[in-house]
Amino acid sequence: MPHRMERFRTESDLIGEKQVPGNAYYGIQTLRAMENFDISGVKVSAFPKYIESLALVKLAAAKANHELGDISDEMIKAIERAAEDVSAGLFNDQFPIDLIQGGAGTSTNMNINEVIANRTLEILGKKKGEYEFCHPNDHINMSQSTNDVFPTAIKIALIKMNVDLEEALAQLVEAFRKKGEEFSHVIKMGRTQLQDAVPMTVGQEFEAFAATLSEETARLEQNAALFEEINMGATAIGTGINTDPNYTDKVVKHLSDLTGIKLKRAKNFIEATPDTGAFVMYSSVLKRLAVKLSKICNDLRLLSSGPRTGLNEINLPPMQPGSSIMPGKVNPVIPEVVNQVCFVVFGNDTTITFAAEAGQLQLNVMEPVLVRSLFESMDMLQKAMDTLRELCIDGITVNEEHCKAMVLNSIGIVTALNPVLGYKVCSALAKEALRENRSVYDLVLEKKLLEKEDLDDILSPENMVQPRRFKQNNKK
Amino acid sequence: MPHRMERFRTESDLIGEKQVPGNAYYGIQTLRAMENFDISGVKVSAFPKYIESLALVKLAAAKANHELGDISDEMIKAIERAAEDVSAGLFNDQFPIDLIQGGAGTSTNMNINEVIANRTLEILGKKKGEYEFCHPNDHINMSQSTNDVFPTAIKIALIKMNVDLEEALAQLVEAFRKKGEEFSHVIKMGRTQLQDAVPMTVGQEFEAFAATLSEETARLEQNAALFEEINMGATAIGTGINTDPNYTDKVVKHLSDLTGIKLKRAKNFIEATPDTGAFVMYSSVLKRLAVKLSKICNDLRLLSSGPRTGLNEINLPPMQPGSSIMPGKVNPVIPEVVNQVCFVVFGNDTTITFAAEAGQLQLNVMEPVLVRSLFESMDMLQKAMDTLRELCIDGITVNEEHCKAMVLNSIGIVTALNPVLGYKVCSALAKEALRENRSVYDLVLEKKLLEKEDLDDILSPENMVQPRRFKQNNKK
Amino acid sequence: MPHRMERFRTESDLIGEKQVPGNAYYGIQTLRAMENFDISGVKVSAFPKYIESLALVKLAAAKANHELGDISDEMIKAIERAAEDVSAGLFNDQFPIDLIQGGAGTSTNMNINEVIANRTLEILGKKKGEYEFCHPNDHINMSQSTNDVFPTAIKIALIKMNVDLEEALAQLVEAFRKKGEEFSHVIKMGRTQLQDAVPMTVGQEFEAFAATLSEETARLEQNAALFEEINMGATAIGTGINTDPNYTDKVVKHLSDLTGIKLKRAKNFIEATPDTGAFVMYSSVLKRLAVKLSKICNDLRLLSSGPRTGLNEINLPPMQPGSSIMPGKVNPVIPEVVNQVCFVVFGNDTTITFAAEAGQLQLNVMEPVLVRSLFESMDMLQKAMDTLRELCIDGITVNEEHCKAMVLNSIGIVTALNPVLGYKVCSALAKEALRENRSVYDLVLEKKLLEKEDLDDILSPENMVQPRRFKQNNKK
Amino acid sequence: MPHRMERFRTESDLIGEKQVPGNAYYGIQTLRAMENFDISGVKVSAFPKYIESLALVKLAAAKANHELGDISDEMIKAIERAAEDVSAGLFNDQFPIDLIQGGAGTSTNMNINEVIANRTLEILGKKKGEYEFCHPNDHINMSQSTNDVFPTAIKIALIKMNVDLEEALAQLVEAFRKKGEEFSHVIKMGRTQLQDAVPMTVGQEFEAFAATLSEETARLEQNAALFEEINMGATAIGTGINTDPNYTDKVVKHLSDLTGIKLKRAKNFIEATPDTGAFVMYSSVLKRLAVKLSKICNDLRLLSSGPRTGLNEINLPPMQPGSSIMPGKVNPVIPEVVNQVCFVVFGNDTTITFAAEAGQLQLNVMEPVLVRSLFESMDMLQKAMDTLRELCIDGITVNEEHCKAMVLNSIGIVTALNPVLGYKVCSALAKEALRENRSVYDLVLEKKLLEKEDLDDILSPENMVQPRRFKQNNKK
Repeated sequence: MPHRMERFRTESDLIGEKQVPGNAYYGIQTLRAMENFDISGVKVSAFPKYIESLALVKLAAAKANHELGDISDEMIKAIERAAEDVSAGLFNDQFPIDLIQGGAGTSTNMNINEVIANRTLEILGKKKGEYEFCHPNDHINMSQSTNDVFPTAIKIALIKMNVDLEEALAQLVEAFRKKGEEFSHVIKMGRTQLQDAVPMTVGQEFEAFAATLSEETARLEQNAALFEEINMGATAIGTGINTDPNYTDKVVKHLSDLTGIKLKRAKNFIEATPDTGAFVMYSSVLKRLAVKLSKICNDLRLLSSGPRTGLNEINLPPMQPGSSIMPGKVNPVIPEVVNQVCFVVFGNDTTITFAAEAGQLQLNVMEPVLVRSLFESMDMLQKAMDTLRELCIDGITVNEEHCKAMVLNSIGIVTALNPVLGYKVCSALAKEALRENRSVYDLVLEKKLLEKEDLDDILSPENMVQPRRFKQNNKK
Repeated sequence: MPHRMERFRTESDLIGEKQVPGNAYYGIQTLRAMENFDISGVKVSAFPKYIESLALVKLAAAKANHELGDISDEMIKAIERAAEDVSAGLFNDQFPIDLIQGGAGTSTNMNINEVIANRTLEILGKKKGEYEFCHPNDHINMSQSTNDVFPTAIKIALIKMNVDLEEALAQLVEAFRKKGEEFSHVIKMGRTQLQDAVPMTVGQEFEAFAATLSEETARLEQNAALFEEINMGATAIGTGINTDPNYTDKVVKHLSDLTGIKLKRAKNFIEATPDTGAFVMYSSVLKRLAVKLSKICNDLRLLSSGPRTGLNEINLPPMQPGSSIMPGKVNPVIPEVVNQVCFVVFGNDTTITFAAEAGQLQLNVMEPVLVRSLFESMDMLQKAMDTLRELCIDGITVNEEHCKAMVLNSIGIVTALNPVLGYKVCSALAKEALRENRSVYDLVLEKKLLEKEDLDDILSPENMVQPRRFKQNNKK
Repeated sequence: MPHRMERFRTESDLIGEKQVPGNAYYGIQTLRAMENFDISGVKVSAFPKYIESLALVKLAAAKANHELGDISDEMIKAIERAAEDVSAGLFNDQFPIDLIQGGAGTSTNMNINEVIANRTLEILGKKKGEYEFCHPNDHINMSQSTNDVFPTAIKIALIKMNVDLEEALAQLVEAFRKKGEEFSHVIKMGRTQLQDAVPMTVGQEFEAFAATLSEETARLEQNAALFEEINMGATAIGTGINTDPNYTDKVVKHLSDLTGIKLKRAKNFIEATPDTGAFVMYSSVLKRLAVKLSKICNDLRLLSSGPRTGLNEINLPPMQPGSSIMPGKVNPVIPEVVNQVCFVVFGNDTTITFAAEAGQLQLNVMEPVLVRSLFESMDMLQKAMDTLRELCIDGITVNEEHCKAMVLNSIGIVTALNPVLGYKVCSALAKEALRENRSVYDLVLEKKLLEKEDLDDILSPENMVQPRRFKQNNKK
Repeated sequence: MPHRMERFRTESDLIGEKQVPGNAYYGIQTLRAMENFDISGVKVSAFPKYIESLALVKLAAAKANHELGDISDEMIKAIERAAEDVSAGLFNDQFPIDLIQGGAGTSTNMNINEVIANRTLEILGKKKGEYEFCHPNDHINMSQSTNDVFPTAIKIALIKMNVDLEEALAQLVEAFRKKGEEFSHVIKMGRTQLQDAVPMTVGQEFEAFAATLSEETARLEQNAALFEEINMGATAIGTGINTDPNYTDKVVKHLSDLTGIKLKRAKNFIEATPDTGAFVMYSSVLKRLAVKLSKICNDLRLLSSGPRTGLNEINLPPMQPGSSIMPGKVNPVIPEVVNQVCFVVFGNDTTITFAAEAGQLQLNVMEPVLVRSLFESMDMLQKAMDTLRELCIDGITVNEEHCKAMVLNSIGIVTALNPVLGYKVCSALAKEALRENRSVYDLVLEKKLLEKEDLDDILSPENMVQPRRFKQNNKK
C-alpha cells in the first residue's frame, strides 16, 4: 500500500521553508526557481532529449560513486531505476523551470537532483522528501557540481539533437539533388550581379544548391564533435574538489556507455569549466547553414518571380492564396518563412556571442540563455528544412521554353566568342547588339566574323555549359 | 434554434477545397496557414492586444465602407458586434497561426477576415461558411490589403504594449530611487576602469541607476510615436487601388476613435507600405534599454561580489541556494537572468536588422519575424524589469562600515589634494603610499605638506562627493 | 631669437622619464600612448573636427577657470591663442595616437593637454617642456578629467559631422526627387514578394525612395540633439571633485559660445559620466539609414537587372566594364558598393552595442572604439551617399515602352476588377489567364462579365495608380 | 634606350577613352575604379600578401595556358618575370584601389591584369598600353574570370596571413604558460558568479588562459584549410566557359607549386563560385578567438582591480599614468584596448554575415567588403595579441600574501567539508560564519564536528586544489 499522500510536504533549505506539492517529484529548490524565473515561457520540460541527458549524467555519476564505495548497493539499484524512468520521459512534466534562468543552471541541476532523489525514495519505499535516506545534494549530486553537470548534459543533448538536424539536412539535399537531375537538360541564362552572364542548365543550379548544403554535414559533424569533450569531475571550478582521484575516468566511461557517445574528459578542467567555445563554434555552423539556406531561398524567390513581369524560370507549388486583395496571386510563402528562420538564427548567434563573452573568472553564468538560443536555432532550422523540402522543393516545376528563349535572346553568349574574336571585338559586338536591339548571332554573321558552322558550334547551348576547347581553322 | 452543426464544412479557394472543422470561426485560408507554418510554436493567439488591434482595424474599415455606402446598415451592425466580440478576446483561440509565417502576414489578415466574417454570419442568423452573405475578402477586407492592415494592426498593438513596458520601467526607476534615498548617507569609493578613483555615496550610485533608466521613458515614447503613422488606404502597394478617394480619412478617423490613439495617415503610401523604419527605431530603443539594464546588472553583481573575497559593498536578497556543491553559497541569480534577457534583446535587434534590410520593391515580406522579435523583446524586458525590482532591488542592503573603511584606506583620495599640491607632488605621494603601504593622510602630515586642519577639511568624505572650492591661506 | 631647439627633451611622469622629440608639441604621455597602442592604423590626426572640438573644450575650461581667478590674465591670453591655433588645424599632425586606445581616452586628453601647454609655453616665450610655467595637468586640464573632456569633445565633433552627413543625405533625396518627377508619367507594374501586383508609376517609385530617405533627416537631428547634453564639471566620476561650484555653468556657457551649439549640462553627473546612451541611439539611426539605403540599392539592382533576362525597367549609368571575361557586360557597381558600406555600418552597430554594454561602475572605458566605429560609419555613409548620387542616381534612365508592355501583359490588373466582380470570380479569371496564357482583358470580354467601355475605364493605367471609385450601372 | 615616356597615354574600353598617367603600370580600368570607389581609404596596396597572391594566380594561369599552347614561349617568359616582380612587391604602389568596391572584385582583377600586362610589355620591349602585344583580358586573364581569380587570390592570402596570426597566438599562449608556472605555488580563492567559491592556485588560472587560447590553433588551422579548395577554371559562373578541359588541373597544380600550399579544385564549380562559406567559418573562428581574448582581458582587469578597494590579486605592469585628474592612478590600458579590438571583430563578423547572405544566383558580389572585414579582424587581432603579450602578460606580478589571506578568511572552504559533514550541516555552518563574522574553521572546532587534525588535513590549501579522497575514521 502506498504512503498516504499529503497535499503538501514541507521542505527547507538555506533560505528557509516552503510547501512543496505532495505529489511533486521536484522539491524546494525547483519551486524557488519557478518563482524566481518567469521569463521566456519555454520550460525545460519541452526538451525531452535534454532531460534524458541530465538523467544519464546523474546515473553515470552514481555508478562511479557506487564503484568507489560511496553509494550502497541498495541505493544504486534504486537510483538506476529512477534515472531510467526519468531518461525514458516518464517525468518530463516535473521539469517546470524556465530555460532562461540565473544561477548558471543550478536550478536545473537541483531539479534533476530532486526528481531522481524523490523517485529513488519512492522505489526504496520511502516518502518523498525523506532526504535522510537519499539526498538530492549528498547522494544524487555526489562528486558533482552544477558547473560540470550542466554543460555536460547540454553537450550530450546537443549531440543527440544534431543527429536529427543532420537528417533533415540530408533529406533536403536529396530533394535538391533530385530536382537537379530532373532539370539537367534545361538550358537557362546564368546571372552574375543580377546581370545576364553566360548559359548554364537549371539542373546545374539545383545540383549546386544540393552541393552547397551537403557541405554543411561535415561542418555539423566536425563541430558537434567538440561537444564530446566534457568536464565531469571538475566539480565547482575545475579543481575536482570533493572527488575521488579515480572518479573522473569512471564517470566518463559510464556516461559514454549510457549515451553511446565516445566522450572524453577535458584536458584542463580549470579551463573547461567556464569555457563556452564549443557552443560558439556550433552556433557559427548553424549560422553558416542559415546563410546558405537564406541565399537559396532568396534565389528561389527570384527565379520564380513573375509570373509575367519577373524572371519566371521556375514555379513553386502554390500553397495558399497569396493576397487578400489581389485575386489569383500566389506567393513564395515557404521560402519566405525559411528566410525568416535564418534571420532568427543570425540573431541567436549574436545572443550567444554576448553570452559567451560574459564569462567571468571560473564560470560562465550565462550558459542558460546560450542553451536556449542553440535549442531554438536547431529546432527552427530543422522545421524550416522539413517545411522547405516537403512544401516547396519537391513540387518545383520549370518553364523550359521560357528559359531557353532567354538564352537565345541574350547578349551574354558573346562571351563564348571571346577566345576566337578577342575581348575588344566582342565588347563592341555586345554594345552594338544592345544599342540596336539586335541578336549577337545575326551581327556576327552580318559582319562575317565567323562562318555560320563555327558560330553554331560555339553558340550551341550544350557547348557553352562546360569547359571546351574550340578549334577553328583560322585560329591563331 | 441554432443550425445543426456539422463536424466539418467544405470551403474552397484558389488552390482547391478543404474540410474546415464545423465549429471553427476561422476558414480555409487559416487552415492552410496552420499546415504551412509550423515553425516557432508561438501563435497569434498568445497576444490578445494584437488580436484586439486586428479586430479594431477591421471594424474601422467596415465603418468607413458603410459610410461610403458599400456596406449595408444591417451588415455593419452585425460586423460591429462581431468585431467587438473578437476585440474583447472571446475568440482568441481562433487564431492558431504561427507568428513566423511567409506571405507578409496574409495568413493573419485572412484569419481575422474569416473569424469576423463567420461571427458576423452567425449574428446574421446564417451558417458559418455561407460567405455569399458576408465574405471574408469582399466585405471584411473591403478597401483593404494585408499590406496596410497587417502593419497598422501591429503598430496599434505595439503602442498598447509599450504602455505596459513604460509602466514596468517607471516602477523599476522608482525602486532604484528609493534605494538612492535610503543609501544617501553611505560613503564609498567610486571606481573607474575598476581601479580606485574618488569617493561618492552609495545613494548617488543608486540614484544614477534610476536616472539613467528614467531617460528611457522619453526614448520609448518618442519612438513609439512613430507607430502613429499608419498606411490604411494604401491597399496593395500604396496606390490605394480599389479604395474610394474619401476612404482613407474616414478609416483613420474611425480607428483613432476606436483605439483612443491619435493616428495619422502616412504622407506617402508607396513609401510607407514597404517601410519598416519605425520598427527598426523602436527595436533600437529596446536595445538601448537593454544595454543600460545589462550594465546595471553587471554593476550589481560586482558590488555584491564576495562575501569575503569580493567588493562586498551591497547585499542582494538571497533567492535560492546558490550551489549544488558549495553549501551556503548565494548567487546574484536575479541580475544574472536579467543580463540574459538583455542578450536576447540584442540578438532580436540583429534579427530585425536583417528582416528590415530584406524588403524588396513594394513590400517587406519579412514583417512577421520582425513582429515576433519585437513582441519577444518587449515581453521579456517587461518580465525582467518586474523580476529585478520585486526579487532584487527592493531587498538590497548595504554594508556601510565596510564601504566607509575602504574610502579611508584608499589612495584615490589624493585627488582631492590636487588643486592644492599639484599633480606632480600628488603623483609622488600616491606612488609612495602604495609602495610603502602607508596612508596618504599620514604621508601628507609627515611631510608637512598641509596643516592637519586643512587636510581634515579637504579629506572629509562629505566634502569630496560634490563640487567645492577649498580656500587655503597659503594657496597661490 | 627663438630658443635653440634640442633634438630631444627629457620629460617625466609617474612611470619614469622619456626622451620626447624636441620639436614635438606633444609630450611624454602622448609618446607612451604611441608606444602602447598600435592597433587600427587610424589616428586622431585624421579627424580635424575632433581636434577642433578638443581644443574648444580646453579653451572653454580655461576661460571658466580664469573667471574664477584660477588662471592668470597673462596665461589665459596665451592659452586662448594656443587653443585657437590648434582648433584651426595648425597642429593636426601633433595627434599621432591610434583612435582605438585603452585608458578611456586619457591618452587623447593628455595629448591635447600637452599640445596646448607647449604651444602656450611657446607663446609665453618659454621652452617646450617647461611645465612649471604652464602644466598640462594643473593648468590645461584644471577642473577637468578625461571622463568629462573626452565624451564632451566627441559629442561636439559628432554634432558637427552630423551636419555634413545631413547635407549629403539632403542632396541624395533631391536627386531621387528629380528622378521621381522625370519618370512621373511612366506606368509600370508594382511587385510585392517579387510577384506581379498592381500598376504604379516609375515616378512614384523614385519619389518613394526620396520620401523614405527624407525621413532620416528628422531622425538624425532628433538624435544628434542628444549629444547637446554634456558633463563638463563632472570630473572623475561625476561628483565634480576639484571644481568650483560655479565652474560648470561657466564652462558650458563658454563652450556653447565657442561652438555655436546650444549645449546644456547633464542633470545627473554620476549618471552621465559612464553613460553611452546617446552614442547607442545615434548609431541606431545610422543603422536605420543604412537599412534604407541598402534596400534602395537592392531595388536599383533588381530594377536594372538584365538587360535581356532580367526586369530591365531602368538603366544605371555604366561606370566601368563589368567583367574581365564577359565582354559588354555592365554591372551596377555603385549600388553594390553602397550595399557593402551599409553592411559595415551594421557591423559597427554591433561593435558599439558591445562597447556600450561593457561600461562598469563609474565609467565606460570602451568609449574609444565606440568613437572609432561611429566616425567610420559616418564617414563611409557620407561618401557612399555622394557616390550614389553623382555616379548613379543622376544618370538613371528608364525603359518606358518595356515598363508599359509589362503592365498590359500582366494578370495583376485583375485586382482592379475586384470591387465589381468580387474576389472569387476574379481569382478564377486570374487562374485561367495564367493557365491558358491569355490576357485578363480578353477573358472578361469573352465571358461578357463587363462592357468593353467599363472595362477600358477600369483598366486604364492612369485609373489604377490612385484611389478611385468606379461607378457602374449594374453595380449592386 | 627606353621608350620616351609620355606624361599620359590614351586607353579605351567599353565605356570610352581615358588618359592614363604615362608611368602607370595600371590602366584605364584601374583608373575608373579609383574614380568610382572612394569609400574606406584602405587600399589594396596596403596588403602585400594579397598582391603577391594575385600575381601568383596570374602566373599559374599563364603557365597552364602556355602548356596548352595558347600563350607563346616568348610571352610566358616575360609574364613569368613580370609576375615575379609583382609578387615580390616591386609594384605594390600600382594597386591604388579601395578594398571596398562594387563589381565583385573585377576592378582588382583588372588592376593585376593591367599591371602584369604593362610590365610584360615593358619586358618585351614594348610601350605600356600596346595591348596588341599582350592584352590584360586576352592574355593575362586568359581562361579566367574575376569570379575565379578573386576568391582564389583572397584564399591564398588568408592562408598566408593565418600563419602569422597563429604565430602571434602561439607566443601569447607561451607567455601565459610561463606565468602559470611562475605562479603555480600561489593559493587563491576561485570565484563563480563573482561569489567566493573554492580555492585554486594563480598558476592554475594562468595555465587555463594558456590552455583555452591554445585550442584556437587547431580551430584556425582546421578552418583555414577550407581555403585550400579553390575554383580556378570555373570562370564566369562555374561552367568553365572558355577553358580547355585540361586547364583546371594544370592551373591548380601550378598554383600549388608556386604557393607551396596543397590546393585542390572545388568539386562543384557552380556551387563554389558564389559560395562564401569558408569565409563565414573562418570569421567565426576569429570571433571565437576574440570571445576568449575578451573574457581573459575582463578577468585580468577584475583580478588587478584596486589597489585598495578591488580584488588586487595581481599587478599589471604600469604602462602610462592613468588619469589626467587622479594622480598616481594606473589603469589596465592594455587589456582595455584588447577588449576593444575584440568588439571590432564581433562587428566584422556581423558585416560578414550580411555580406555572405547577400549572394544572389551565380555570384556573391559583396566579397570585397567581406575581404576587408577579414583582413581588418586578422590584422587587429595579431597586433592586439602581440601588444597584450609584450606590454602586459610578460610583466604581471602576483600579491601572494593577499591571495592566501583571502583563502583563509573565506567561507567557501566549507565546501571541502561537504563529503564529511553533509550539505545540510555545511549550509548551516556557512550561514552562521557569515552572520556572526566568524571563521568556518573556528566554528567546526567549537561545535566539535571534526578533530583538529582531520580539519587541518581537509582544509590544507594544497589538498583543496585537486581531486582527493579524505578517509576519516568515523566516516560512514
